[in-house]
Amino acid sequence: MSENALHGGIDAGGTTFKCGLADASGALVATHRVPVTTPEETLAAAAGWFTEQTGPGSLKTFGIASFGPIDVDPHSVSYGTITGSAKPGWSGTNLRAHFADALGLPVTLDTDVNGALFAEMSQGAAQGCASAAYVTVGTGIGAGLSANGGFLGRPSHPEFGHIALRRHTGDGDFKSVCRFHDDCLEGLASVRAIRARAGAPEDLPAAHPVWDIAADYLAQAARALTLTFRPERIILGGGLMLAPHLISRIRQSFDQQMGGYLEHAPSSELITTPGLGDNAGLIGAILLGQQGAQ
Amino acid sequence: MSENALHGGIDAGGTTFKCGLADASGALVATHRVPVTTPEETLAAAAGWFTEQTGPGSLKTFGIASFGPIDVDPHSVSYGTITGSAKPGWSGTNLRAHFADALGLPVTLDTDVNGALFAEMSQGAAQGCASAAYVTVGTGIGAGLSANGGFLGRPSHPEFGHIALRRHTGDGDFKSVCRFHDDCLEGLASVRAIRARAGAPEDLPAAHPVWDIAADYLAQAARALTLTFRPERIILGGGLMLAPHLISRIRQSFDQQMGGYLEHAPSSELITTPGLGDNAGLIGAILLGQQGAQ
Repeated sequence: MSENALHGGIDAGGTTFKCGLADASGALVATHRVPVTTPEETLAAAAGWFTEQTGPGSLKTFGIASFGPIDVDPHSVSYGTITGSAKPGWSGTNLRAHFADALGLPVTLDTDVNGALFAEMSQGAAQGCASAAYVTVGTGIGAGLSANGGFLGRPSHPEFGHIALRRHTGDGDFKSVCRFHDDCLEGLASVRAIRARAGAPEDLPAAHPVWDIAADYLAQAARALTLTFRPERIILGGGLMLAPHLISRIRQSFDQQMGGYLEHAPSSELITTPGLGDNAGLIGAILLGQQGAQ
Repeated sequence: MSENALHGGIDAGGTTFKCGLADASGALVATHRVPVTTPEETLAAAAGWFTEQTGPGSLKTFGIASFGPIDVDPHSVSYGTITGSAKPGWSGTNLRAHFADALGLPVTLDTDVNGALFAEMSQGAAQGCASAAYVTVGTGIGAGLSANGGFLGRPSHPEFGHIALRRHTGDGDFKSVCRFHDDCLEGLASVRAIRARAGAPEDLPAAHPVWDIAADYLAQAARALTLTFRPERIILGGGLMLAPHLISRIRQSFDQQMGGYLEHAPSSELITTPGLGDNAGLIGAILLGQQGAQ
């Protein structure tokens, strides 16, 4: 039966759960999207799909890469539980326990960005790197970081979206969209922040001045990562990075900001977009499940 | 002869080389200070002292915790060589090779802040912590970081003093003392920067407004570390931290800046001054030598 062994995973985002099954070679053989509503409805629909798709005993490993804040400490009694109040109605939901019960096997869980980072380091843009960062620039901003053979921020996870930034000279008056901080990366450079300044990012021409502001801020983030743990690769993903001109502007601002202080890889190698695109989180979730079962 | 086994180390600072010998129990049995002049003179004086102090074969291990930038990669051909031009005349000097030749044993070398961090994690303010940061706030600002069982920034080292900061509202016009960056931690909050604003820090009354500015900036630094790799302890050392009122101001500013966003250890536990005081670097150097020989 080993040829029928399947490895499952969920990229659990705030609006969609992307469910997937890979075969023993790692190739995705089936995927399914579940819209996020209430925890009960969403979890039942996702677990139901996996049960339908897999014969008895064929599902060998299972992993989840989830939105947060979430308890990612395997030694914690609440391992896998969404904490805080980031998403109304979801605080206290134990994703890991639910799927472990529903599917009858151990489940490994980590953050969405750690999942994406793991996938990118395994088979994507950071393959072969000993250290790397994956930053998602979406509605919010989060990061997964890896060095010395493991994720950083243990037993919890980074909250890199909330570091302080120096204001861009053309952005002094903008009111941060973060309700905790008037000066943080997420409050100034997330999709929500760009939308508050200029409307939907996908509708903005490349010449709009907000792009230079966003590039400055994301370059400050790359600079903070570089000067702190010197990752070999910084991968910038998420909705805002779909603007094709943004990555080169960030690299340019990064070089300017570093001012030649440090010898580092050319920014065109150091700072990059995801190699696995939209599938990084799902592939990462499946890989986390496989690693956890070892 | 094992009762006479000695472990040597140097805390190689930019103005003084602190040399020391510890016995098998780890207790310092002799120390000696060598003023830094030319590389030739300084290295000969330091090596000479160790040779005088130790009988044939009694020196078992040797470590150096050095100013930088310096090559700390054991796999590099220039391991132990001071790079860049931080200190005139010293670029290209291979500290490790010099002492290995002069003393006839392998030498382990790392940065001064990694040495201090290692000592503080072994027997000081971060004892028992799985992750920690040591930030020195002196003429310059540097940091040693440790997580997942090793130093961060490998195969090089962090350059944390050059992260971007948000300006304090009362500090908009100050010209950064960093020649590379008009917005960095070292340029705005080092001893040099405080001196440029208000004179020698040791002469400034606690009520001087520059202390609130310094506290804000150092709290931004602690915030950046916390939101990036969540160290269990952040140790702030170096000359500026000798002002006894500064640490509590930094904690207060840190709490204010975090805005209750994150559950973390009370800032009075998280952010602290060195437990080993001025000896951290030397003890760390000796410990690095012992670890390297294992």
